[in-house]
Amino acid sequence: MSNRRTGRRRGNPDTREQILDAARHAFAERGFERATIRQIAQAAEVDPALVHHYFGSKDQLLLATIDAPFDPQEVLPGIVAGGIDGVGERLVRAFIAVWDGPGGKRGAVLLRSAVAQPLLVRLVREFFVSRVVKTALKELGSELDNGPFRATLVASQLLGLAMARYILKLEPLASAEPEAVVAMIGPTVQGYLTSPVPVEARGV
Amino acid sequence: MSNRRTGRRRGNPDTREQILDAARHAFAERGFERATIRQIAQAAEVDPALVHHYFGSKDQLLLATIDAPFDPQEVLPGIVAGGIDGVGERLVRAFIAVWDGPGGKRGAVLLRSAVAQPLLVRLVREFFVSRVVKTALKELGSELDNGPFRATLVASQLLGLAMARYILKLEPLASAEPEAVVAMIGPTVQGYLTSPVPVEARGV
Repeated sequence: MSNRRTGRRRGNPDTREQILDAARHAFAERGFERATIRQIAQAAEVDPALVHHYFGSKDQLLLATIDAPFDPQEVLPGIVAGGIDGVGERLVRAFIAVWDGPGGKRGAVLLRSAVAQPLLVRLVREFFVSRVVKTALKELGSELDNGPFRATLVASQLLGLAMARYILKLEPLASAEPEAVVAMIGPTVQGYLTSPVPVEARGV
Repeated sequence: MSNRRTGRRRGNPDTREQILDAARHAFAERGFERATIRQIAQAAEVDPALVHHYFGSKDQLLLATIDAPFDPQEVLPGIVAGGIDGVGERLVRAFIAVWDGPGGKRGAVLLRSAVAQPLLVRLVREFFVSRVVKTALKELGSELDNGPFRATLVASQLLGLAMARYILKLEPLASAEPEAVVAMIGPTVQGYLTSPVPVEARGV
């Protein structure tokens, strides 16, 4: 994604793959925060500068390891900027726009691969926890209790929307107009973010 | 499942697989309603009586083709029997009980396989439309407008719960007590079944 934008895709494809492979293992095993570009470069037997040259930042390298259909740091601030009111609808609308658009094919590939490959599961989890949740909670965080639990509930509904609408293609959800889906699922996401947490879920 | 219960699993494993294979293609291509045991037996080159002997009814044969983790016709009536009040919580509670229990492993296998195999996607869709939705709507149907759309919304949240809690294991949702999850997701499912459909989604 970032590579296409900046025109940096050039370079030896073997070297690129070596770096990606080293990065996948480093992120999956050590976690995104603790893995370093230096270690990844060492494992791939290249200079750290080359990793930066090919992929930009460590953030962008994580996106490249899973071929993420969108960059949460680009998409989320706009969604969250309007404040907590209506954020559920804006999030569902943006999610559908990505999946209905060219990013949808990459999202489907990612979801299909992730359920089958334990390494990729760990990477998607890192992506979700380090990038999506942290970015969103940084903006909304001060207003939310139980932030991480709320974030995983939102993720469960959005993952399920992807599965039902784009992978299993369950009708009539699969062919419904985007705004019809936003009208039904937007309030769910809004509720997960803002409804008081019932006493049974207080400690989660 | 039914076979384990009735002790009918015996018989030539090749013949069983031949029948399952023929059934998978028949259900996927013609749909559950239109496929017949007679056609399936013919394609598998066996006597129709043998299909009944191995698998029981056509319903049970469909469950066997996908190794379904539960039989909706056994589970759903109990959930729906209490009427529409609280049906969302009962459904989420039963869903978690299946996935937290021994059925969870089979559910995970099914979900992992279904996202990768188009034939299995069609079977899961048939299973969902012919068995889950019809069984549920038969009980609740008269009280619901937009039944099929509501059913796919419920499916989207339950599929997503399975993905987030059992496949990707996103924390803290993955380790949350069942009742904490019921308290948060039960009202969503209840809302999908009973909230008025907004004007944007009226035609779906």
